[in-house]
Amino acid sequence: MRVLVTGGAGFIGCHLCDRLVAEGHEVVCVDSFKTGRRENVAHLLFHPEFKFVEQDITEPWFVDGPIDGVLHFASPASPEDYLQLPIHTLKVGAFGTYHALELAKAKQAVFVLASTSEVYGDPEVNPQPEGYWGHVNPVGPRSVYDEAKRYAEAMTSAYHRTHGVRIRIPRIFNTYGPHMRVNDGRALPNLMTQAILGEPLTIYGDGSHTRSFCYVSDLVEGVYRLLLAPNPEPLIVNLGNPDEVTVQQLAAEILELTGSRSEITFRPLPEDDPKVRRPDIRRAKEILGWQPVVPRDEGLRKTLPYFKEALAQLHVADRERKRLQLQAMG
Amino acid sequence: MRVLVTGGAGFIGCHLCDRLVAEGHEVVCVDSFKTGRRENVAHLLFHPEFKFVEQDITEPWFVDGPIDGVLHFASPASPEDYLQLPIHTLKVGAFGTYHALELAKAKQAVFVLASTSEVYGDPEVNPQPEGYWGHVNPVGPRSVYDEAKRYAEAMTSAYHRTHGVRIRIPRIFNTYGPHMRVNDGRALPNLMTQAILGEPLTIYGDGSHTRSFCYVSDLVEGVYRLLLAPNPEPLIVNLGNPDEVTVQQLAAEILELTGSRSEITFRPLPEDDPKVRRPDIRRAKEILGWQPVVPRDEGLRKTLPYFKEALAQLHVADRERKRLQLQAMG
Repeated sequence: MRVLVTGGAGFIGCHLCDRLVAEGHEVVCVDSFKTGRRENVAHLLFHPEFKFVEQDITEPWFVDGPIDGVLHFASPASPEDYLQLPIHTLKVGAFGTYHALELAKAKQAVFVLASTSEVYGDPEVNPQPEGYWGHVNPVGPRSVYDEAKRYAEAMTSAYHRTHGVRIRIPRIFNTYGPHMRVNDGRALPNLMTQAILGEPLTIYGDGSHTRSFCYVSDLVEGVYRLLLAPNPEPLIVNLGNPDEVTVQQLAAEILELTGSRSEITFRPLPEDDPKVRRPDIRRAKEILGWQPVVPRDEGLRKTLPYFKEALAQLHVADRERKRLQLQAMG
Repeated sequence: MRVLVTGGAGFIGCHLCDRLVAEGHEVVCVDSFKTGRRENVAHLLFHPEFKFVEQDITEPWFVDGPIDGVLHFASPASPEDYLQLPIHTLKVGAFGTYHALELAKAKQAVFVLASTSEVYGDPEVNPQPEGYWGHVNPVGPRSVYDEAKRYAEAMTSAYHRTHGVRIRIPRIFNTYGPHMRVNDGRALPNLMTQAILGEPLTIYGDGSHTRSFCYVSDLVEGVYRLLLAPNPEPLIVNLGNPDEVTVQQLAAEILELTGSRSEITFRPLPEDDPKVRRPDIRRAKEILGWQPVVPRDEGLRKTLPYFKEALAQLHVADRERKRLQLQAMG
């Protein structure tokens, strides 16, 4: 297959590129580096089956040659990112998705939209099945992401109904692993960074709210199965790890793993922050034969070395930046 | 004031143009005639304070000169229209709203987004207050309209937060009156058309589901007050008539008004059709001092002559079309 990955230099996108190349597929990776990073795909740049296109997908764009699958994974995805890029995030969800769908339609490619558990908002049912319509504030600060993704789902569905495009919509729950941005503002990287640096761990709220963390290789396996699934009808499938944990418990596990003696401090929950979050994955099991296989202790252990290395590099870069500043000041 | 009205040749848009001109304002009316109609604004074309621009707002566009207010009312709005123009409807909500917001930002104009009770979806609370987050299926057939409007609300809110644009979001409940399209597929025009033509009246569902119908002059008064409101903060306000009625009761009232002896037939409810719909208008009362003043019997009586005239013209046009067809066939 020749597969196009938008957001291919992002956290999940780069793992998808790796997996696709490893499986012998050709990959066209599209990224604007607004939140994706060059180092995530640097090791692929000279691979003969890998092509990189630097492109902001909110502008019109096109790609030559046949494309069998479009994995549309471009978007700011952490609250810190999308609150800093609110209008861009909205444009990626609508304009970017439109351009990606037009491409899939023209190439007769299967279209996989990276959706999110955020379409369920602050859910009133737990776990969340795919038939749940969600509980999202359309005018709150988080709506720039949540509503953009709901809109992207609506547009993707319309391309199936109107033009017969074969579509898959994985709703992705919290995912973690190497190549996350260590400072992307989400709970897990925040806590792990603070533990490694010996800083106090910050918990927003009282720590009783829950998340379900899926290790990235599990998530990639689910997306890959969706891409290859022969079903002609739309597939809307939760992908996540149903092993729900309170943020307080996660903090304790990270403290133990890192051997850190950091204290825990509490801050107010941000507006409209979901209190619980857990995927109902019965549909993924049934249709794709998929379920996560990496338990959290193993996933966290695999993630730790990456965070240590990334933080060390940040530290070196920061020191170098300060040295140059001092030099410039004479 | 110089006010731009997108969708100014549509049902509500043309009433807004009339009102603005009558109040002594300058009006720039923008419409693509995809669902708007030339005859709705024909009487204004030679008015010195009225300017018409034919433009599809999903494409980039701009307007010269100062603009003090943007009334963004362009969109297919009846289920029949948006199910026939699903992708265009999505594009109007995102691309069209983006272009209109960019214009409001550039002109430092107050921005009024015509939103809808459809952002509440098939509601779980009745009446619906503005703080209700809604119950919308993001991947159902109606999502092309509902999610487009929720997205438009999110983007409008983001322009306020990011660029300080002064915004007002009326959530408009069912509205009726002259200049509705007699064949737009909604309950009230459907029933009235069938009663006038002596055809059986069609009720979708068992007739027990409810709607709240606001006469168009009441709605226009509310929008006009929103446009002039001095408040710097965003105003998100339900505009509708809280006088809830079952569709069965509405059908009976229309039969009585028209003196028709048509029978009533029942058909299955379309997918995701809201079962109840009634605005909580306490906020509009408090902030704008607004409430509807035209009771339904008066509003229906005022609407009937327009429907009779419009149907007669359709009939003439249809006969003429058939005559030309016969002529062409020799």
